[in-house]
Amino acid sequence: MAHKADTRQRILDTAAVLFHTRNYADVGIAAVCDEAGVSKGSFFHFFQSKRDLALAVMDRFQNQIGATLIAKAFSPNHPPLERLDRFVKELYVFQKAQAKEHGHLPGCPFGNLAMEQATQDKVLRQKADRCLRSLADHFRAAISEAVRSGDFPPVDEAATAEAMLSYIEGIQLVAKARNDPELIRRLGPAVKSLRVPKRA
Amino acid sequence: MAHKADTRQRILDTAAVLFHTRNYADVGIAAVCDEAGVSKGSFFHFFQSKRDLALAVMDRFQNQIGATLIAKAFSPNHPPLERLDRFVKELYVFQKAQAKEHGHLPGCPFGNLAMEQATQDKVLRQKADRCLRSLADHFRAAISEAVRSGDFPPVDEAATAEAMLSYIEGIQLVAKARNDPELIRRLGPAVKSLRVPKRA
Repeated sequence: MAHKADTRQRILDTAAVLFHTRNYADVGIAAVCDEAGVSKGSFFHFFQSKRDLALAVMDRFQNQIGATLIAKAFSPNHPPLERLDRFVKELYVFQKAQAKEHGHLPGCPFGNLAMEQATQDKVLRQKADRCLRSLADHFRAAISEAVRSGDFPPVDEAATAEAMLSYIEGIQLVAKARNDPELIRRLGPAVKSLRVPKRA
Repeated sequence: MAHKADTRQRILDTAAVLFHTRNYADVGIAAVCDEAGVSKGSFFHFFQSKRDLALAVMDRFQNQIGATLIAKAFSPNHPPLERLDRFVKELYVFQKAQAKEHGHLPGCPFGNLAMEQATQDKVLRQKADRCLRSLADHFRAAISEAVRSGDFPPVDEAATAEAMLSYIEGIQLVAKARNDPELIRRLGPAVKSLRVPKRA
């Protein structure tokens, strides 16, 4: 059983790197199997399809980001607005390390999948959407706390959190187009300047 | 000669719709030829490769956006900050119409290509980057004018323009993940709240 769990995890880890550092469409099951050193038969023992694999890869990214970026940045031990700065800094460090390791700044795995596959595959679109909403929840909690403490003006908290998440996705997109992580470092802190007023 | 020009344009128009409403990787030259009603021989008379076609499609999008969204929104006849609101409104109308016609909100063609192909093809990445920089130039001109007239605080104008462009890309990304143009309408106007201070 331990060996089986290892094989599944090895497929997942391999696919996560390939999808993130290349893209989804250009990475076939055969390439994942080759890179992971498993047979196609073994692959289909664990995953029904490439889409099934991609859904599991997104869960893996969510867990990974939750245990690293999110845990470091959004700890309730930090003042709420400082969490936004910490998130931007962690994101910069992560994307810079990825760019150095792979030669290309890979961007956000959820944003990548949304932009590439949202028009092609509703199931993948909805998965990317759920992952992005989950990220926005952390921004919303920080904003709500900052509004309550008077460190942030009264705004539409849910919409401002979505605006901030959108901005974070956007700076990763532009940084990916330039292959330049410094754009995240330079523009990231301005996330705190975004405000969506309450509806009139 | 007129017929030849028509054929090239028909290939371009067809590929623009297919790349935008599906994506780049999943649309082959055969599909473009089928849809445009041209032979592969005819295709290769005009384009050396799919990448060559994609570069021409990006030029076509730039011209189209320049003659529509940009011309309507960034006219010097409007006050500079109003131009940003007009741009967001035109973008909403465009993405909503596209979503209605094709069933899927397609997002920004330059952002799509960057997110999908930046790690795969340096030439396509650099093309998407140039198209995005060209969009940011319009934001920069509006910000500079607003700062001079006192309607906007002194900021790092180039960086704030890049932040605004990033935000516009980000809201299109999240709207695409949700397949919901209303997100652009709701969050778009907050682009004016972004400020990147001058370097200390």
